[in-house]
Amino acid sequence: MNFNESNKLRIIPLGGLEQIGMNITAFEYEDSIIVVDCGLAFPEDDMLGIDLCIPDITYLKENEDKVKGFVITHGHEDHIGALPYILKELNIPIYATKLTIGLIENKLAEHGLLRSTRRKTIKFGQSINLGQFRIEFIKTNHSIQDAAALAIYSPAGIIVHTGDFKVDYTPVVGDAIDLQRFAEIGKKGVLALMCDSTNAERKGFTQSERTVGKTFDNIFNEHRNRRIIIATFASNVDRVQQIINSAYKYGRKVVVEGRSMVNVITTAQKLGYLDIPENTLIDISQMKNYPDEMMTLVTTGSQGESMAALSRMASNIHRKVSIKPGDTIIFSSNPIPGNEKAVSKVINELSAKGANVIFSDVHVSGHACQEEIKLIYTLVQPKYAIPVHGEYRHLKAQAGLAKELGIPNENIFILRSGDVLELNEEEAAITEKVQAGTIMVDGLGVGDVGNIVLRDRQHLSEDGIIVVVLTLDRYSNQLLAGPDIVSRGFVYVRESEDLMGEAKILLEETIMECISFKSCDWNRIKSAIKESLGSFVWKKTQRRPMILPIIMEA
Amino acid sequence: MNFNESNKLRIIPLGGLEQIGMNITAFEYEDSIIVVDCGLAFPEDDMLGIDLCIPDITYLKENEDKVKGFVITHGHEDHIGALPYILKELNIPIYATKLTIGLIENKLAEHGLLRSTRRKTIKFGQSINLGQFRIEFIKTNHSIQDAAALAIYSPAGIIVHTGDFKVDYTPVVGDAIDLQRFAEIGKKGVLALMCDSTNAERKGFTQSERTVGKTFDNIFNEHRNRRIIIATFASNVDRVQQIINSAYKYGRKVVVEGRSMVNVITTAQKLGYLDIPENTLIDISQMKNYPDEMMTLVTTGSQGESMAALSRMASNIHRKVSIKPGDTIIFSSNPIPGNEKAVSKVINELSAKGANVIFSDVHVSGHACQEEIKLIYTLVQPKYAIPVHGEYRHLKAQAGLAKELGIPNENIFILRSGDVLELNEEEAAITEKVQAGTIMVDGLGVGDVGNIVLRDRQHLSEDGIIVVVLTLDRYSNQLLAGPDIVSRGFVYVRESEDLMGEAKILLEETIMECISFKSCDWNRIKSAIKESLGSFVWKKTQRRPMILPIIMEA
Repeated sequence: MNFNESNKLRIIPLGGLEQIGMNITAFEYEDSIIVVDCGLAFPEDDMLGIDLCIPDITYLKENEDKVKGFVITHGHEDHIGALPYILKELNIPIYATKLTIGLIENKLAEHGLLRSTRRKTIKFGQSINLGQFRIEFIKTNHSIQDAAALAIYSPAGIIVHTGDFKVDYTPVVGDAIDLQRFAEIGKKGVLALMCDSTNAERKGFTQSERTVGKTFDNIFNEHRNRRIIIATFASNVDRVQQIINSAYKYGRKVVVEGRSMVNVITTAQKLGYLDIPENTLIDISQMKNYPDEMMTLVTTGSQGESMAALSRMASNIHRKVSIKPGDTIIFSSNPIPGNEKAVSKVINELSAKGANVIFSDVHVSGHACQEEIKLIYTLVQPKYAIPVHGEYRHLKAQAGLAKELGIPNENIFILRSGDVLELNEEEAAITEKVQAGTIMVDGLGVGDVGNIVLRDRQHLSEDGIIVVVLTLDRYSNQLLAGPDIVSRGFVYVRESEDLMGEAKILLEETIMECISFKSCDWNRIKSAIKESLGSFVWKKTQRRPMILPIIMEA
Repeated sequence: MNFNESNKLRIIPLGGLEQIGMNITAFEYEDSIIVVDCGLAFPEDDMLGIDLCIPDITYLKENEDKVKGFVITHGHEDHIGALPYILKELNIPIYATKLTIGLIENKLAEHGLLRSTRRKTIKFGQSINLGQFRIEFIKTNHSIQDAAALAIYSPAGIIVHTGDFKVDYTPVVGDAIDLQRFAEIGKKGVLALMCDSTNAERKGFTQSERTVGKTFDNIFNEHRNRRIIIATFASNVDRVQQIINSAYKYGRKVVVEGRSMVNVITTAQKLGYLDIPENTLIDISQMKNYPDEMMTLVTTGSQGESMAALSRMASNIHRKVSIKPGDTIIFSSNPIPGNEKAVSKVINELSAKGANVIFSDVHVSGHACQEEIKLIYTLVQPKYAIPVHGEYRHLKAQAGLAKELGIPNENIFILRSGDVLELNEEEAAITEKVQAGTIMVDGLGVGDVGNIVLRDRQHLSEDGIIVVVLTLDRYSNQLLAGPDIVSRGFVYVRESEDLMGEAKILLEETIMECISFKSCDWNRIKSAIKESLGSFVWKKTQRRPMILPIIMEA
């Protein structure tokens, strides 16, 4: 069977290159496709009312018979979050490491997909064969355990995909990244490296997770007589491990609060990824039995998310925890771009309640900085460089590093979602574009909110809406009722009675004029209403509310 | 005349303490009130459709006969921006330094207030007498020229108000901050210091503006054969001066682009605050006459504002400038919290067009860091500390510094807008609260958008609106027309015909049931519509659009 005379591997990112999030990349060789990761993205600011975004997988559905499986690098939302949605359309097996499978299973259970989804746990060093591909899982470090890089062996050559990674020589739990294996594979000859670009603009080396543990120890030591509350990412199991370590060392109990954190911690504990001394973890209901100086609370809300546990504490609507003067509150996280103001708001609220808020030097990134990226390139020695994971600026920064390391410009590819990069040892080029994009999820609706709906929401959000209703006689076209004017989100009507009164008189004139013509049709009446009311309102208020004329007939 | 038996000075901030922006503080002694600054704030994320915010000055209007004048520290929007709105309600004279008056006059002209507003230019070192107060203007450094601190002499004692400031020993133009005068006044004995808190969380010392000039020189030197485009704050005249200096040195012409920047530069040049070598500044229409390596473009848009010049260039909708591969683009600014994502979007767009974007180490702050704040406290030696200008976290950080410097806790006041702090040498306390708050401006409407309207806009923005209209017979209560359903921002109707069809049937039943009762009133019909349609839509979509029933009678 030879569908592809050229014997080229096709790399087709279907997301993850225009933004942080929604990572998904197809690898195609002849009759086989494998898909690396299947993440969600959080909505952009202009996607009003949207809950989350998932990738458009039309290309995979069109080639369903070829698709052999999902290979998942690690258990973060931007790599696994779209699975439940995509699996409903494309039921193919999932391959990942143990903790990753555990976190995926939580999602599958929520969506009632546990029984219908095949999944297999892979160990580091182990390989799986999927059609024409063999995929080897390589141990890396990241802000979640069990993160893997992939060596993808294809007849056209080897691709190394780092997943999200950093180099941590002294990880809190488990081994350092398997640099030797990167080197070995590099020696074999690697066709292309697809490397994490998130921190490609940052100089130097990302600090070891262990440095945060030392800081925790210092803070616990300095704040012995205070209650300590620590917000961090729900999925950062190692961070929670270090909090538990410090708490235990200083004789404190630990409460975990926030649904997503409880979920992750429960899974991690069940699968053996957390080492918790007996009687250290207690339920939030037991908090009252211990004095403040014996309490440590680990909570969600480090990004200022309005409904997360810490935000609810800050605004006094948390049912079980009230912030007290003297509480020590640690943000063990950096704000993700876009969340700065929300985080600051929570810090202000907590400070105003008399809490001592610590937010500097209590976090390290999970992504490789420039020196680590250079290290991986130097071990892997790829022919082609394909920066992944990041916005354009980050991809470009990594492209700059690749160039510095001697990879010629024409061998560096900054791809866009939907690009098809065909490559082998002889040549590489973007040869075509397949359908790709963002599907918006709003409530139960997947993809039913499009640009028209978003544009309307944007319009409504800025100046509100004025509805004009009237009833016409079916036969005579006479005005039977109205025009009535109802507005929402425009002005507070009780204080603007004059404005609304004038508008009504104007509309009556407009409508009378329209229906006095025999040939008058409804569209013409609607246009006339929009036009005359629109310009009246603009003149009076310099606002442009949506104007919605509704004509009924009786 | 002794209205105030206690002989206390009353300090009443009417804004600027809960947020960055909207700075305005009243100082009241017996029959005299002076007002320091009158700024606007940009709307918070949840103030949908709002253009800007101004302070509630009810207290000043209630005491109009006492108010002697506005004393303005410098010409930034958060210190002068509300003047045109407030002056329409309270016509009192303005006192400020020359450039500040120039920038205020631009605003007055726009609002047709030039003729009706008295204003006086004050020199550094000069004092003015306003009722019981004498106010002295003291030279400081900031990211705009002619910034002043104020020494406010009252019968109860001296208040030093720093305005926004930094300590720049080597400013680009003019003198360093008049530290000697701060010291002299400190020697006399200062009752309270009101000091800028913006950077109170930052250690060390803010770099001199001059360091940015050196960086510009380096960049101009390295990018000799490129077009250079620099985005910075419209009001940072010294920054523009340094760009002009570097451009001149490297034989380039300078074009200024963006309405607000052209305004400020024109005023600054007219008043002698910019030193521009002949034939250096050219009009944008002349750009085509010069090769790229002779061009420098200074532009607005450093905060990623969607309609600013640089953003328009980035998204290909600028009429006169197209970004070309090889352009060197410098962001000489840091993103203001909340703007990070917008800035990143512009950087991505520019990078994708092949431009080389530089955004590190090409900006210094205009605000004092911790060591500068400590210096001012040490020179002024106030009895009371009143941190100003900043969010709560910043005020609290400065309070921490004041404490470190030996000011007792009970002499440090973190005020909220509306608090009345009464103080003299003997004692100080917050004695009452006056009306204060945020007035939202939307188009021509000042204060006509309140919480109800905002809540509606929020609701509309998330899930849109469904309007249900029906016409009832005035006498029989029979259904003459409808129910008709029209939605906006909810789902794309053409793809959801089934949903809307089912909804219509459901509503017909609901309405029929209602009007079959004799006692049925309209409110009951409306509630029934909201309830049945709301729960139907939630079940089907898990969305909660606004439901707006409109009943007409004929």
